Amino acid sequence: MYKDLSTEQLKNEKQAVQKKYDEYKAMGLKLDMSRGKPAPKQLDLTDDMLLHCLDGAHISENGVDCRNYGVLDGIYEAKRLFMPMLGVGRYEIIIGGNSSLCMMYDNIARAMLLGVLGGKKPWSKNEHVKFLCPAPGYDRHFAICESMGIEMITVPYKEDGPDMDMIEDLVSKDEEIKGIWCVPMYSNPTGITYSDEVVRRFANLSPKADDFRIFWDNAYCVHHLTDTPDHLLNILEECKKTGKENMVYIFTSTSKISFPGGGLAVLAASEANINFIKDQMGYQTIGYDKLNQLRHARFFRDFEGVQEHMKKHRAIIAPKFETVLNILDKEIAPLGIGSWHKPNGGYFIAFDGLEGTAKRTVELCKGAGVVLTGAGATFPYGKDPMDRNIRIAPTFPTVEELQKAMEIFCESAKLAALEVLEK
Amino acid sequence: MYKDLSTEQLKNEKQAVQKKYDEYKAMGLKLDMSRGKPAPKQLDLTDDMLLHCLDGAHISENGVDCRNYGVLDGIYEAKRLFMPMLGVGRYEIIIGGNSSLCMMYDNIARAMLLGVLGGKKPWSKNEHVKFLCPAPGYDRHFAICESMGIEMITVPYKEDGPDMDMIEDLVSKDEEIKGIWCVPMYSNPTGITYSDEVVRRFANLSPKADDFRIFWDNAYCVHHLTDTPDHLLNILEECKKTGKENMVYIFTSTSKISFPGGGLAVLAASEANINFIKDQMGYQTIGYDKLNQLRHARFFRDFEGVQEHMKKHRAIIAPKFETVLNILDKEIAPLGIGSWHKPNGGYFIAFDGLEGTAKRTVELCKGAGVVLTGAGATFPYGKDPMDRNIRIAPTFPTVEELQKAMEIFCESAKLAALEVLEK
Repeated sequence: MYKDLSTEQLKNEKQAVQKKYDEYKAMGLKLDMSRGKPAPKQLDLTDDMLLHCLDGAHISENGVDCRNYGVLDGIYEAKRLFMPMLGVGRYEIIIGGNSSLCMMYDNIARAMLLGVLGGKKPWSKNEHVKFLCPAPGYDRHFAICESMGIEMITVPYKEDGPDMDMIEDLVSKDEEIKGIWCVPMYSNPTGITYSDEVVRRFANLSPKADDFRIFWDNAYCVHHLTDTPDHLLNILEECKKTGKENMVYIFTSTSKISFPGGGLAVLAASEANINFIKDQMGYQTIGYDKLNQLRHARFFRDFEGVQEHMKKHRAIIAPKFETVLNILDKEIAPLGIGSWHKPNGGYFIAFDGLEGTAKRTVELCKGAGVVLTGAGATFPYGKDPMDRNIRIAPTFPTVEELQKAMEIFCESAKLAALEVLEK
Repeated sequence: MYKDLSTEQLKNEKQAVQKKYDEYKAMGLKLDMSRGKPAPKQLDLTDDMLLHCLDGAHISENGVDCRNYGVLDGIYEAKRLFMPMLGVGRYEIIIGGNSSLCMMYDNIARAMLLGVLGGKKPWSKNEHVKFLCPAPGYDRHFAICESMGIEMITVPYKEDGPDMDMIEDLVSKDEEIKGIWCVPMYSNPTGITYSDEVVRRFANLSPKADDFRIFWDNAYCVHHLTDTPDHLLNILEECKKTGKENMVYIFTSTSKISFPGGGLAVLAASEANINFIKDQMGYQTIGYDKLNQLRHARFFRDFEGVQEHMKKHRAIIAPKFETVLNILDKEIAPLGIGSWHKPNGGYFIAFDGLEGTAKRTVELCKGAGVVLTGAGATFPYGKDPMDRNIRIAPTFPTVEELQKAMEIFCESAKLAALEVLEK
């Protein structure tokens, strides 16, 4: 453990680590681990979708020519893929375009400009609008708020989800709080899944604002990595029990099932919310790409087809997660300079280093050719108050590249820790 | 001419027309001419795009895997299809998703929430926001304004475009006027194309608002119907001459080239505008569907390929326009109860009946099984001050259906005219 070393021992260790780091640096590697990008081999899994799924037949089950205008909320066979995935009914879902981020952005833009069901006025007609942001979280969620001038309040994580005491307290008092960002399953980046109790407490929130919404980004709901997957309670069902079913918007996509940027995005919510949103959406578009909906419906057939398909993804990426975790266990754990959660799914491992080391670690990695997500990116305004969280995205590189990149990461983390401990 | 008939003659004529109308009604037809929808035969023209264009190769010319994330503004080979179409350079264009309506909506939403280049604050931070709306125009343009509470000021059309005296006068005086809707070529629904002088006067506008934008929806720029197509001056080029190149956003799409809802949308503007918009767009999405961009680039190859393709569309739809015009010439022209422009392209014929007859004509058509766009839809707030404009969309029905539908239309227009003349 580094903390037990004498000044002299720290100095020697630092020299040794620096030497190793310099050797890696001299290799001139170039590896990008900045984003949760599927590897080309994962994309190959759905290549057939592009070739055969529309073989001369463009008519949906109920007779819609998917090449022409219409069907704002998506064709039924596409809905059917996602209804069991999210545990919702056919009138509780909209199949969107190629990006769930875009669906979330659009829902916030609509809330700001037009208002939400049950709200007295558009959010933007209030002097201040605030969002709760459990952190570390997804940088692009926070960026949406920042772009629109929505004030973000950081909520810390506990073992089984965000700090619900704090959330309950804040939303019950402050009418300016209009929403909260959640990645409830295999959370980006921590990898944890919200406990049943946490989900129930969400469903039971009593916000002061009558136009408050939970943005439930269930991006990784079928992205398991182990034989003991996590289980997430159905928030819409829980909200129905409390009579607050209009409080939640659920999002997911096939970006990491079929193609990132060439897949389907999905919004699920109460039937009343869906009808309200469809009315608003009708001003923006006549409908999303039904040909791509048809491709997906025919390729996967049903939700079982999706689940089977996800096993193929797992076979490709689980070894990558193991590679990262093995190196961290071997190189970092014995030194007491970092902690992480071993996720049962998702796309990330969140590394918490010593306080004040994250930025320096990312900088050192970059110096040796390994690009990571910027330190701080996982917090509102890009500011990690402890400067210790780093998001590791293991999916894109090959196992061999990853091995090398993680060796560099570990030496960088050690060096950054030693620099702090020296002081 | 109906206006020359005596009361007695009018009565007899009405009886005769009513009888004919009732005969059509008894046929129990069901025809929808409400929207500008391509016919299935037109969609067949691009079926091959869905089968062969991605045959095992998903890499763009410059090495992008189009199955994965990235390239916010679209791949270069897709841009290259549209650059000569709109007369803009590679840094003056963004390839979007499946809907130009959506791109227009998003640009207005961003202007409202975030502001435009050169603006001091977001549009929505003003107490009032106004748009000029040349009318008759596209109902979905007007609906966007209405949904966001943007006040619409109707501008009448002259022979060669909207009333420029009125537009110049209004924008120079009123800082609350932030934009204007234009369909400058084969205008929806009138079919006229703006003259060179009108385009130059647009490029020379001196709006009081420094965040004023011309929304130039060039939806029908390659949708010619005759051997003597109209020509539209390049507004961006003209704006560069006056130093006002940031004043215009140009839109188009392949909705009526490839697939409506499964095509590509395009935004063109000055490089400064494009860079500013890309920065804002980055909060909404990581990128649009590049696989569909690649499909289009490979199917059409280049702009010449698009132009050749449009000849095939013309071969299918030009006879439909002829059918409509022939019946109007034969049945309506001699009676002096309506006027229309014979368009050289586009998707519509705008019929101007006698004052106070449009709603009744549409109602009568519906009664006999022919659904038209609602009367008034072509005006802001759905209110045609003269109640005389009806948009005829001839593309979707077959020639045989259209013949029947137009016979019913003519009897309905006559009946409505006779009812007014009787009074």
